[in-house]
Amino acid sequence: MSKLKMLKRTLISETVSNVGQIVLIKGFVRIRRDHGKLIFLDVRDRSGFIQVVVNPKISEKAYASGQELKPEFVVEILGKVNKRPVGTINKDLSTGEVEIEATEITILSKSETLPFGTGGNELNLELPTLLDHRSLTLRHPKVAEIFQVQAKILEGFRKAAEELDCTEIVVPTIVVGATEGGAELFEVKYYDHKAYLSQSPQLYKQMMVPVFERVWTIAHAYRAEPSVTTRHLAETTQLDFEIGFVTFEELLNLLEKVAVRMLKHVQDSCSYVDKVEFDKIPRLTLREAQGIIFKEFGRDNRKEKDLTPQDEIDICMWAKKKHKSDLVTITHFPTLAKPFYIMPDPKDPEYSFSYDLLFKGVEILSGGQRVSDYDKLVKAIKDRGMKVDAFEMYLMAFKYGMPPEGGFSFGLERITMKLLNLSNIREASLFPRDMERVDERL
Amino acid sequence: MSKLKMLKRTLISETVSNVGQIVLIKGFVRIRRDHGKLIFLDVRDRSGFIQVVVNPKISEKAYASGQELKPEFVVEILGKVNKRPVGTINKDLSTGEVEIEATEITILSKSETLPFGTGGNELNLELPTLLDHRSLTLRHPKVAEIFQVQAKILEGFRKAAEELDCTEIVVPTIVVGATEGGAELFEVKYYDHKAYLSQSPQLYKQMMVPVFERVWTIAHAYRAEPSVTTRHLAETTQLDFEIGFVTFEELLNLLEKVAVRMLKHVQDSCSYVDKVEFDKIPRLTLREAQGIIFKEFGRDNRKEKDLTPQDEIDICMWAKKKHKSDLVTITHFPTLAKPFYIMPDPKDPEYSFSYDLLFKGVEILSGGQRVSDYDKLVKAIKDRGMKVDAFEMYLMAFKYGMPPEGGFSFGLERITMKLLNLSNIREASLFPRDMERVDERL
Repeated sequence: MSKLKMLKRTLISETVSNVGQIVLIKGFVRIRRDHGKLIFLDVRDRSGFIQVVVNPKISEKAYASGQELKPEFVVEILGKVNKRPVGTINKDLSTGEVEIEATEITILSKSETLPFGTGGNELNLELPTLLDHRSLTLRHPKVAEIFQVQAKILEGFRKAAEELDCTEIVVPTIVVGATEGGAELFEVKYYDHKAYLSQSPQLYKQMMVPVFERVWTIAHAYRAEPSVTTRHLAETTQLDFEIGFVTFEELLNLLEKVAVRMLKHVQDSCSYVDKVEFDKIPRLTLREAQGIIFKEFGRDNRKEKDLTPQDEIDICMWAKKKHKSDLVTITHFPTLAKPFYIMPDPKDPEYSFSYDLLFKGVEILSGGQRVSDYDKLVKAIKDRGMKVDAFEMYLMAFKYGMPPEGGFSFGLERITMKLLNLSNIREASLFPRDMERVDERL
Repeated sequence: MSKLKMLKRTLISETVSNVGQIVLIKGFVRIRRDHGKLIFLDVRDRSGFIQVVVNPKISEKAYASGQELKPEFVVEILGKVNKRPVGTINKDLSTGEVEIEATEITILSKSETLPFGTGGNELNLELPTLLDHRSLTLRHPKVAEIFQVQAKILEGFRKAAEELDCTEIVVPTIVVGATEGGAELFEVKYYDHKAYLSQSPQLYKQMMVPVFERVWTIAHAYRAEPSVTTRHLAETTQLDFEIGFVTFEELLNLLEKVAVRMLKHVQDSCSYVDKVEFDKIPRLTLREAQGIIFKEFGRDNRKEKDLTPQDEIDICMWAKKKHKSDLVTITHFPTLAKPFYIMPDPKDPEYSFSYDLLFKGVEILSGGQRVSDYDKLVKAIKDRGMKVDAFEMYLMAFKYGMPPEGGFSFGLERITMKLLNLSNIREASLFPRDMERVDERL
């Protein structure tokens, strides 16, 4: 039996503390370079990358295997960890001071010749090509990094939830009726009935406030957007909080606290993410923001019911310049432009206790204080021309006692996109769904 | 301004360390009892329950408010924390040695008279009533407990994932085609196309193995089960792992390790959950299990391709009696009874490297070692009469190098159901979906 079968695997990141030892690594060939009689391999596993030298003088057999190798071959390599010669140290690599001298190479799985080069630091493919070959392109380190960041956003969100004493809930995605009164619903053939895919966990998380008071959920949300933009997907991931016994002011403090907690966690975990500034997040009402845009950027949108995409970019530039903040909170959108469950500001009911959080020019969060009074809620539903009957179970929660409450919802893919300065939200979803694509092009 | 508005809220669980102090609590009236000239309230918040005494001699005004109160009213109560008289200590309650003497009561939200009594330790409603009034019945402590346990299962699963160095992935639920070859798919009207709701994150998590090597996801899974049973739902939650560079034996060790880690976490967090025994989990092949059932229970199912529901109950009883284990692992189901991606046992290809984990008479996990060779995978798809074209992106992952790998998937609602000895899986889902119900009855 070969030595290879008897040794325990060493992760690539652990090789640096095994100089002079024989180790067994397992991973993927990332790059193969031939230099005269030597073969150099870059090998990756889940912990990192390392250079492997295949020298026929060390092992003829390993060299013969080495000559077969191409990118994405899966291998087990037995070899000695050596310090690299001084001039060849790679400072960009955490294992850059060592290399493995191969004594045995076993090919676990072969790869066909790749349809494009993947050896560069960037992948540089057009979006359709990137997505057509998704199960291959995700392996490129720069692409994989996006989803390491995404995993850290999720982890940071959960850490915030734990610190705020919130309980996780699991909410369904199959619903009856257009609960938020919007169009753009995907219809599901549900046995002999019509159902829809949920636009958000909103109504369910509200129903859970009297149960656990503070709840969170990570939920899929579906919108049949009839257009193709760089910042919309048909299936997205929402990170949601809903909190009882709070005021509007407390909600603003909470959402900013959670956002900062989450972003800090990502920055602490992923050194390659650009530094985000968020010492003091400016808060503006919609009308104040529009006033600034008029004054500073010359566009008069002061009667509009929302910021335009360009407004969002500009007000973020303003916040960055004036307040050194990559985040800005916008409050008080017009009541009738918001869903029925958002509470009007009692001092000026034309505007609502709603808020968005903008990050580098894009809305990454929205939410508000909720209408918690049953009669007002019924009226708000009727005012929007919706049927009260469709909300029977939801309204029941308000009929039997509901504290003042509110919440907010982050868009996972949007945060990912902006943290990494991606130009299209499709790059921030492992397997993006839109009008034109469900894995394959439609 | 009243004192009430100036004090910071005290959580009910914190009152025990505030004896003699004036505190402000916020919560829901659970029960009101009138004893002569005194009103006793049981009040709950997210941290627990406490008894409040409303005495007209202390405050006429508080007493007047107290007389208005009914179950589920939302209140703020200002009062003094007193030690209870010795004979009235409630040992079943963590705050049972204290009570609050109310000096001010503010009603934040009123409740209509409840359609059924909720004051008992058990709710004791028929299932349809329980679900018709879901947003109310979830508030009952015994019902809420189910979902505290569920949150702890999820947390325990994530702790195991973290300890195993796995990366979280987000997989889509809208898919094209019946990826697992099964029927029972929900059809979605996807723009001008037909799409379906995913039966499992299986193919996506496998595609991610070459990216992160070890991945996990918590995903919704959909099955249009045409029948109504006590252990099937149309929308369920799966807890999934997929791991590269593993053998079948290692997978069995891993799944048992994760299951035990998760169940232990729940037991450490929730004292009211029955103790689970799992020192040494017995492992049986399907045929061995059927042999035991024949010998011990007299039913000859030795040629069947799976355990029957009664077999699952009986083999768990056997494992409990013989091995003091509430868990039992069953391996080697017939290859053709399993999906195409499950690897046949090379020593006896009629049977496969598949496994189920049974817990108290029900399967709570299934999985297997995967076919990682491209040609074998294509053949397995064709052998089952499916179209290779439908798996283009999935197969791409195998064309470009795939290590030996495998994984498993837990059913969240089933674990919840069995941990709490619930008789119907609908009780283990906040808002269960089945043939007959999507919140309201269909």
